[in-house]
Amino acid sequence: MLDRMSESLADLIRRRFGIPTETGRSRPATGTLAQLLSHRVQRSFLDKPIDPETLQILLAAAYSAPSKSDLQQATVIVLRDKEIRRKVEALVPSMPWMSEASELLVFCGDNSRVRRGAELRGKPFPNDTLDMFMNAAVDAALVMQAFITAAESIGLGCCPISVLRDEVEQLSAILGLPAGVFPVAGLCVGFPAREARFSMRLPLAATVHTDRYDAGAFERELPGYDARRAEAEPARPGNQRHKDKYPDVLPYTWSEDKARQYCEPQRHSFGNYIRKQGFALK
Amino acid sequence: MLDRMSESLADLIRRRFGIPTETGRSRPATGTLAQLLSHRVQRSFLDKPIDPETLQILLAAAYSAPSKSDLQQATVIVLRDKEIRRKVEALVPSMPWMSEASELLVFCGDNSRVRRGAELRGKPFPNDTLDMFMNAAVDAALVMQAFITAAESIGLGCCPISVLRDEVEQLSAILGLPAGVFPVAGLCVGFPAREARFSMRLPLAATVHTDRYDAGAFERELPGYDARRAEAEPARPGNQRHKDKYPDVLPYTWSEDKARQYCEPQRHSFGNYIRKQGFALK
Repeated sequence: MLDRMSESLADLIRRRFGIPTETGRSRPATGTLAQLLSHRVQRSFLDKPIDPETLQILLAAAYSAPSKSDLQQATVIVLRDKEIRRKVEALVPSMPWMSEASELLVFCGDNSRVRRGAELRGKPFPNDTLDMFMNAAVDAALVMQAFITAAESIGLGCCPISVLRDEVEQLSAILGLPAGVFPVAGLCVGFPAREARFSMRLPLAATVHTDRYDAGAFERELPGYDARRAEAEPARPGNQRHKDKYPDVLPYTWSEDKARQYCEPQRHSFGNYIRKQGFALK
Repeated sequence: MLDRMSESLADLIRRRFGIPTETGRSRPATGTLAQLLSHRVQRSFLDKPIDPETLQILLAAAYSAPSKSDLQQATVIVLRDKEIRRKVEALVPSMPWMSEASELLVFCGDNSRVRRGAELRGKPFPNDTLDMFMNAAVDAALVMQAFITAAESIGLGCCPISVLRDEVEQLSAILGLPAGVFPVAGLCVGFPAREARFSMRLPLAATVHTDRYDAGAFERELPGYDARRAEAEPARPGNQRHKDKYPDVLPYTWSEDKARQYCEPQRHSFGNYIRKQGFALK
């Protein structure tokens, strides 16, 4: 591990994107910026509880995030009952760190309060729109990201579990989600057992555009990114997806991995589930 | 303004939720937790530029946020051309702080890279699902929340502008958004001209549930919240929505305001726009 005292933000940016940079060279790698730049997903946890007061503080900080149109459409379900938590963990047997984590939370989009509020105030609610659904998902995401930042600021680590949506009907039944409510992601929280891997990001030249969308940016930047990332985070032998369909390739790149991941239908049940939860998505 | 040195996190939590609390009483109001708990939307900015290096650092920190399934589906468009920015501002004449802000960004969900990546790698992409659309919106939200936290950590203020989606077709044309890309929110960024108002949140007793969704929580907590918030943030006289339809009420509560806001159709064009952008939302 590098000596943090002599690191600059430029070092953290270089590590994040895998490209040498002078940006941030004169700024020390301290504070919230350094924390955000050092984010990594934690998948291995100590057997150590988070005290209840700390969890409450993290949740209070998380809910301080902005809310779209002030509708406050995020609900978090904290799993404390061992039997319920075991059932949720069993939905994703490929992720044993779900059982290791001190806490397992489920972040939900929640449109039910807006609808119930309209009823309670005697008003119509002619807004069963795709926009309203997206706003609820976005609120859950804003609260989750603020929670992750809060948790990491006191030395905890987190792992979002979107794959819970693969079994969304079962998850929803276990949690008793009513109409208007849907899971966006689970989140494992706990004390890191070991240093986690960094995930290299697409360069900002691909993801940040000026004035108008730059349709050529992705293809210009992809070969370099694929090469840098394959070198920094080489796939373990035997870890190539769909070996039945596609021959092993070297280097096994990010774009190859993502293309293979989505070469077969994934989560086609989610749309039906959302519609059953009462969203017309107009 | 309270003396920060003598404040505890409990003071910030009390201010956020409007309820006395002992949670965080022994912890000083410092660091990232205090910053998150002190978040407020900034709607008034000094005429002072953000230097380009700082903006790059904030974007690098923002893109360090986790990405759903590692698909990196967030694109940010930074508006630098005065003419383009003026056109975007003109879409929302009710928000003059859009012109005051040092920077105006547009955070987009971007599914086009995943689709193009599949083509480039010669793989099918049978995943034009609602889940994939939601994941892209969530990625944009995670990056935006991380950006806001990064910006606030160095004394900048931000104001998300979801209302840009009211004119989503025009916005999309101005920014040249291709198929698979859609705006989630604009974001004003700048140096605060004056202290901004706090937005009181629903109590965690309403928004954080244990083990199973608590369908009675909202109605139990709403009257107290409505009363506390109406007292702390009284509506200005004449600021009640739809005065043509509904008589003035006192107190004019959060639930009354939100019920009135959505008593007429809002953003019904967004769903059509998303479908035109090539999302089947299966």
